[in-house]
Amino acid sequence: MSSAPQFAKVVVFGVGLIGGSFALALKAAGQVGEVVGFGRTLGSLTQALELGLLDRIGFNVGQEVCNADLVLIAAPVGRSGEIMARLAPFVGAQTVVTDAGSTKQDVVAAAREHFAERLGQFVPAHPIAGAENSGAAAARADLYRQKQVVITPLAENPPAFVERVRAAWACCGALVRELSPAEHDHVFAAVSHLPHLLSFALVHELALRSNHELLFAYAASGFRDFTRIAASHPEMWRDICLANRSALLAELDGYRAQLDGLREALAAGDGARLEAVFELAREARRAWADRKVGE
Amino acid sequence: MSSAPQFAKVVVFGVGLIGGSFALALKAAGQVGEVVGFGRTLGSLTQALELGLLDRIGFNVGQEVCNADLVLIAAPVGRSGEIMARLAPFVGAQTVVTDAGSTKQDVVAAAREHFAERLGQFVPAHPIAGAENSGAAAARADLYRQKQVVITPLAENPPAFVERVRAAWACCGALVRELSPAEHDHVFAAVSHLPHLLSFALVHELALRSNHELLFAYAASGFRDFTRIAASHPEMWRDICLANRSALLAELDGYRAQLDGLREALAAGDGARLEAVFELAREARRAWADRKVGE
Repeated sequence: MSSAPQFAKVVVFGVGLIGGSFALALKAAGQVGEVVGFGRTLGSLTQALELGLLDRIGFNVGQEVCNADLVLIAAPVGRSGEIMARLAPFVGAQTVVTDAGSTKQDVVAAAREHFAERLGQFVPAHPIAGAENSGAAAARADLYRQKQVVITPLAENPPAFVERVRAAWACCGALVRELSPAEHDHVFAAVSHLPHLLSFALVHELALRSNHELLFAYAASGFRDFTRIAASHPEMWRDICLANRSALLAELDGYRAQLDGLREALAAGDGARLEAVFELAREARRAWADRKVGE
Repeated sequence: MSSAPQFAKVVVFGVGLIGGSFALALKAAGQVGEVVGFGRTLGSLTQALELGLLDRIGFNVGQEVCNADLVLIAAPVGRSGEIMARLAPFVGAQTVVTDAGSTKQDVVAAAREHFAERLGQFVPAHPIAGAENSGAAAARADLYRQKQVVITPLAENPPAFVERVRAAWACCGALVRELSPAEHDHVFAAVSHLPHLLSFALVHELALRSNHELLFAYAASGFRDFTRIAASHPEMWRDICLANRSALLAELDGYRAQLDGLREALAAGDGARLEAVFELAREARRAWADRKVGE
């Protein structure tokens, strides 16, 4: 392979855990010439620069975006639209824009509005990685290694542009998958958005109790793991829940029906039914743990 | 300290993860003369013997229990009563019996029935440790190190007997606490039993979907941690749920009300309310993680 980096210039909007780790991974792979960053506060951008996530802080969106090979939008999904509005008018003919949003149908709708006839230059994607810690200081070059990244290509995307986004994530060590935006949102409502909502709900419920000190004093490893995701970023998760509202409401209702059944079995003292549910759940969880890749 | 072990003879009913780890820990501390085991199947007892958890397999309950310093009942709580019925008639005047049940009021009720006027010899306890793996093969000498053990003493217990149970767990490296049986059951319904039920429910709900293969293929680290306890022992958790039914039903209803509130906020697109819930949960989770001991 040639020693020239695949990406001469990459621009990142939002240099936190996700954007910062993407930049670090491309640098570690020697596949990026320079990384230019935009963000909400000069403080976070300065920190990112000091941490070596960025080569430069961007000041003029038009100048930076027009000749970029790749632009990554890595901000809470609620901010995708405003960022697209800032950069879309300036994207060069060969510039590919992608994102890292945890929801896709809302991001695609925003892209349709802001990129208009240039929609083909926006390739939606979602890296399935993260941590309860956020911000530039949490960025790691290996965050995406062996993790899945879901690309949800649009009919308007030229294959070469989809391939560029795929190649960038492959440089980060990620396992690239493809789903439609709708498939993506339904899958993640079930396996990610709902569990986050349920975990936040439990901690919130207990934290409001007058005896929460006593309760938390005896919480152990089961509670620790169940609630790890309740330490996730509130603004990010507010946006995800709102952006994927209809799918998440459907999942929440399905789950509530499941709880109703368990409550009925518990109230009736139906041990056989409880055990059957626990047994099936245990088998499914173990089968998943045995076969999964790219968690 | 003297080199003689504090416990000349310990009898364990149920030599799985909990009973086996207790035996290993006492042996590692050099504080037990011999450990005699009883169990449901000769196969598991033979395995426990081969793994060095036991010195002998017990065959005659009366002979083994009459001169034991300490008897540990470490079986699913639903079996506590039948085990008490087998051993209670034979406990020597200086024999202390304790248990490792995850619920206490039901165990105390069974003890009241089976030990009758010897109730003072039964000191209820609950080691807050475990793993999704169960069975003798999962036993570890360090399972209880820095973990909490809750003793729920009875008015009938002579202080010296409570002290003996406390000392045994201290030998295992555990942090010994005291609660009343009722306090214990309410606390653990909230921080342990409910989360287990919620985790089992999510995996069961998804496992029954026709597209469960697709869903599980994209489940990542958040799902992994949230559902780790869904791989817990079905019979053990059936018994815990039934034994602590009233407290667990109350927790389940409180949680459902919490979910109703979140559903309402989500359906109304009330991002501020969602973010406030997530923010409070995150702060409480982080404060807990920073201060907790003995998880």
